[in-house]
Amino acid sequence: MSETAVNAEQVNQQSSNSSGLSALEILKQQDRESAKRAIAARLYQHGVRQEEPVDLSYVVREGESVEPLTPESGNDALEVYRHSTAHLLAAAVLDLYPGTKLGIGPALLDDPKGGFFYDFQRAGGERFTPEDLPKIEKRMKDLIKRNLEYRRVEMPKAEAEKKFAEMGEPLKCELIEEKAGAQVSCYTIEGTPFVDFCLGPHIPSTGKIKAIKLLSIAGAHWKGDESREQMQRIYGTSFFSQEELDEWIRQKEEAEKRDHRRLGQELDLFSFSDAIGPGLVLWHPNGALIRKVIEQFLNEELYRRGYSFVNTPHVTQSELFRISGHLENYQEGLYPPMTDKENEQIEYRMKPMNCPFHIQIYKSRQRSYRDLPQRYAEYGMVYRYERSGVTHGLMRARGFTQDDAHLFCTPEQLVSEVVACLDLVDFVMKAFGFEYKAELSVRHPTDHSKYLGSDEVWTMAEDALTKALNEYGLPYARMEDEAAFYGPKIDFKVVDAIKRTWQLSTIQCDFNLPQRFGIEYIGSDNKPHQPIMVHRAILGSFERFFGILIEHYAGAFPVWLAPVQAIVLPISDRFNERAVEVERQLQSEGHRVQADLRSEKIGAKIRDAQLKKIPFMLVIGEREAESGAVAVRDRVKGDTGAVSVAEFSARLKELVGTRALQT
Amino acid sequence: MSETAVNAEQVNQQSSNSSGLSALEILKQQDRESAKRAIAARLYQHGVRQEEPVDLSYVVREGESVEPLTPESGNDALEVYRHSTAHLLAAAVLDLYPGTKLGIGPALLDDPKGGFFYDFQRAGGERFTPEDLPKIEKRMKDLIKRNLEYRRVEMPKAEAEKKFAEMGEPLKCELIEEKAGAQVSCYTIEGTPFVDFCLGPHIPSTGKIKAIKLLSIAGAHWKGDESREQMQRIYGTSFFSQEELDEWIRQKEEAEKRDHRRLGQELDLFSFSDAIGPGLVLWHPNGALIRKVIEQFLNEELYRRGYSFVNTPHVTQSELFRISGHLENYQEGLYPPMTDKENEQIEYRMKPMNCPFHIQIYKSRQRSYRDLPQRYAEYGMVYRYERSGVTHGLMRARGFTQDDAHLFCTPEQLVSEVVACLDLVDFVMKAFGFEYKAELSVRHPTDHSKYLGSDEVWTMAEDALTKALNEYGLPYARMEDEAAFYGPKIDFKVVDAIKRTWQLSTIQCDFNLPQRFGIEYIGSDNKPHQPIMVHRAILGSFERFFGILIEHYAGAFPVWLAPVQAIVLPISDRFNERAVEVERQLQSEGHRVQADLRSEKIGAKIRDAQLKKIPFMLVIGEREAESGAVAVRDRVKGDTGAVSVAEFSARLKELVGTRALQT
Repeated sequence: MSETAVNAEQVNQQSSNSSGLSALEILKQQDRESAKRAIAARLYQHGVRQEEPVDLSYVVREGESVEPLTPESGNDALEVYRHSTAHLLAAAVLDLYPGTKLGIGPALLDDPKGGFFYDFQRAGGERFTPEDLPKIEKRMKDLIKRNLEYRRVEMPKAEAEKKFAEMGEPLKCELIEEKAGAQVSCYTIEGTPFVDFCLGPHIPSTGKIKAIKLLSIAGAHWKGDESREQMQRIYGTSFFSQEELDEWIRQKEEAEKRDHRRLGQELDLFSFSDAIGPGLVLWHPNGALIRKVIEQFLNEELYRRGYSFVNTPHVTQSELFRISGHLENYQEGLYPPMTDKENEQIEYRMKPMNCPFHIQIYKSRQRSYRDLPQRYAEYGMVYRYERSGVTHGLMRARGFTQDDAHLFCTPEQLVSEVVACLDLVDFVMKAFGFEYKAELSVRHPTDHSKYLGSDEVWTMAEDALTKALNEYGLPYARMEDEAAFYGPKIDFKVVDAIKRTWQLSTIQCDFNLPQRFGIEYIGSDNKPHQPIMVHRAILGSFERFFGILIEHYAGAFPVWLAPVQAIVLPISDRFNERAVEVERQLQSEGHRVQADLRSEKIGAKIRDAQLKKIPFMLVIGEREAESGAVAVRDRVKGDTGAVSVAEFSARLKELVGTRALQT
Repeated sequence: MSETAVNAEQVNQQSSNSSGLSALEILKQQDRESAKRAIAARLYQHGVRQEEPVDLSYVVREGESVEPLTPESGNDALEVYRHSTAHLLAAAVLDLYPGTKLGIGPALLDDPKGGFFYDFQRAGGERFTPEDLPKIEKRMKDLIKRNLEYRRVEMPKAEAEKKFAEMGEPLKCELIEEKAGAQVSCYTIEGTPFVDFCLGPHIPSTGKIKAIKLLSIAGAHWKGDESREQMQRIYGTSFFSQEELDEWIRQKEEAEKRDHRRLGQELDLFSFSDAIGPGLVLWHPNGALIRKVIEQFLNEELYRRGYSFVNTPHVTQSELFRISGHLENYQEGLYPPMTDKENEQIEYRMKPMNCPFHIQIYKSRQRSYRDLPQRYAEYGMVYRYERSGVTHGLMRARGFTQDDAHLFCTPEQLVSEVVACLDLVDFVMKAFGFEYKAELSVRHPTDHSKYLGSDEVWTMAEDALTKALNEYGLPYARMEDEAAFYGPKIDFKVVDAIKRTWQLSTIQCDFNLPQRFGIEYIGSDNKPHQPIMVHRAILGSFERFFGILIEHYAGAFPVWLAPVQAIVLPISDRFNERAVEVERQLQSEGHRVQADLRSEKIGAKIRDAQLKKIPFMLVIGEREAESGAVAVRDRVKGDTGAVSVAEFSARLKELVGTRALQT
């Protein structure tokens, strides 16, 4: 094919332009074994590591050195590998479906949809169907067996545009026009019609690819623009070993089974409505009940720990967010303005944050050092204008309820306040069965240009957070240059039941807002001082936390959270009366119990209760009705024998009181 | 004076135009005693009672009859009386301050500011000051003593305009131009320069006025339009007896002492912020705590009564309110729109009501008759764009949180659902110590043109509400033609500690929204049916209810609601340690207790605790510290003797558990 011919020519030309050896040749000299396992090379120029790896065919120049990029090298290696697999997918598609036009085909590293995708536009309005995927996958495997070379070729921009135009790839021409410099790099795969405008790097040959799987087909538009060409996106993934692929598929299936959107529908927990709009959650009775139990749990705990609750409105004149700086710096995240009906100069905004409201409460009277710390907590619903395309169930909503609190304290109180926050995070996360990791984010060690506030106050606060972590005995990772511009912070990542991590709790110092709003307290010296303000959230938001909880428990909520804790199942209508008695008795003792009085077979009732993931089924037949007992069936352990109603009630009470995660 | 001359002439002319006797003459024939006490007359034409009363001088025509309007006749009489007092005020002002221009001067029936006002514009930019009021009031009393006649005169519009123009009363000319028909009626008071364009009726003479008081001066604009003439409004009131006036002043002073805005500031319960805007409440820790206690009380009660809670967002695409009809019919009450950033066709609105959101939850799955009733409760914050001038503390806010619920039931379930609502209203109102009265609002007996829905469904619902009221044994007033357009309702008016009434709870049937949203359930006949929807709120809104509670209790909340239930007061620093012990012990038993460890004298500490209206002060001195007791001081009863901490804790527990209103 002509392109391949061109490429080979160009490669030669590139080689002749340099005097040194290829990366692979150098790696082989360094260590034959690791060179064999390399898929690309890490490049150093004058000892400084370069961000982008290079092809093994890269000709190393004066002042440069290389290291092997192997399967053990982490995400950089995986990205090259998957990017190359995406090319392989395109090559297989062009092989099987000549005339298909190419879009883009990047690697993905942490996306539940897959490890890469490629966008295609079939000739003559044809469309891929899921049935095509095995055929394409098979052709990819054939190409792997043939161990075909990936080749890089460079040419002047005009030449590249001409080539792709001749090949009938107008979208690639558009991309080159927009993105390419004077010199354009392209990649081919030997023996296939595939050629792509691409910066690389890529693996040396298809034989390096060990485990692939095509996953799904989705609709897509060129450049994500709905007014542009409609395309089809094929998702796939690849791993360095079949074992890793199998594990990923297993975990993906597990995650899909636990998908909170699916379980939310099945367990009637929440929904969205087209008439209301994307990202705005309707909490159904079952979901709202779990939320209320969590709220109640937090209420008691926070009051016990010396917090006050406050309530603030969801809308404000823009003035508040002008003072806070959100109007200027957070414009994109804000819902659009409402112009006041009485005065056009005034506009209103839905609140994206609670902080400035809590500051108004702090400011409503003079504070003395004796009044500090003030700890204001609120389950404050905030609104952030996410693009409708990126909203995702409860995990990324446009309206969500932060379990927000703001502490106003003196510098002397900061350590003990942070220790108290750490203890609260620990207490709450353990209640839900989450392990967690802490990260302390501080300024850049030397460059402080992007951070607001004096060196003195930053040093004080970073020291205080460090001291608090040490005092509490919590291991943490120190993240340089990861602080917020307004102050240092501690973030917490929890690990869920299927080992995924989620960023949840946060404790953040803020030197910015106290200054902007000019808040103060009168010190023991009788002079005004600026208090330290600490933002902290434990769950993050009720919506996202609930989404995570649903997936963490796979919908099988522990007894203290379960909307229905036990369901009474009479084995025939004859025992309905007794079932209602048992229901009433348990309800009167404060348990969430229902009776299933339908004229269904007991097997069907048990199946339905299992589907609803109700912790306990209390079966009532002849013997139980006579003895006043219930035959307890555990949703996990199955039948656990008959006990008296009083005994079962005590067991429920114990499980709820201890917030037991298992029955 | 020339005007008086004209008036007398006109009156004669009026008399000569008719052939009958005056109302007063007829009343005298009917009953000399009641005629003496009459201030105006009620007019009947062909046996049909006319809405507006008439002057006693009114010449009764063929087919007309009259009844006396006396001080016992209620609001119609009071309105005539106060309207006449407003005229008297204007007459006194013109007497004392010649050249003053007149605005309007209506009667007020249920306004804490007074029983009437008159708007004035002084000559030469002079302004009234509070010191002027006694002088004006004295002049009014002089005019009363002289028992001067109120005279009505009618003339053609052009003539009236000319008269008022000559008198230099341009605002009156404007009013006549806008409001008058071909014939204009004016009133004068004999012997004063006062003449007013006025429809009447009025009392026959100033001697009828028994008790007056001028109250305050406020700024006002002609027609309430800030771009028009600035005026001064003098408020006053009048009653038929000095006793009534004294009682009203006493109650007004009592109400001022209880003003929730003043107590809200003093007890640190809530505030507003200029940066946030009018009518948007910030609940401070003490206020939010009381609210949380009330929420928790309702949570338990509602769950116990078979309600589910739901949570819905505060913003929605307008589509939802287009379907509901609010966009069309409730435009004025809505906050301004937000135009979607992605799609100009879409706009968002803050919600003014929760109903359509709850309907979306109902609609999220198919419902069978077996699933009904569904009872969705939410503490749903709604936003209504009140003009900034009419917002009033917590009583009339722009954002407020309804304790809203919507019941979806079959027609057969309506009676029992309403009975359950009645019982809930009773339970909750009694918990706060409120007496209440019920009103059943039904359609007009014959004219159904403004009511939506079939006769059949209205009759069913009105019958169901009536039956429920009877079944529950609740007396009620039946209000014809007072139903909502969408269905009949029961409203509840509570009476507070100083005998004021407040509209709080409501139970409303709605046939409109179920139809607009096309919601249904599958009946036992396997066919779709439209459920009955019932809106109900018990408190109305947390904000307004809290305002009423503050005034009802005068800030002295019962123990179960008090933010701080007891404060420990060591009589000197020596007992601080013991005070903290007592504080901790009581806190650990779930009580809201603080210790006052300041180095203040015990008298000062007690005074501060009384000002904070804390139910119990626990004084600790030598004897108490030794014996492990506390000397209990009740905020109402004073010292009540020493008890052990355990005993006091048990007493608190009892008071909270029974929600006792008194200690």
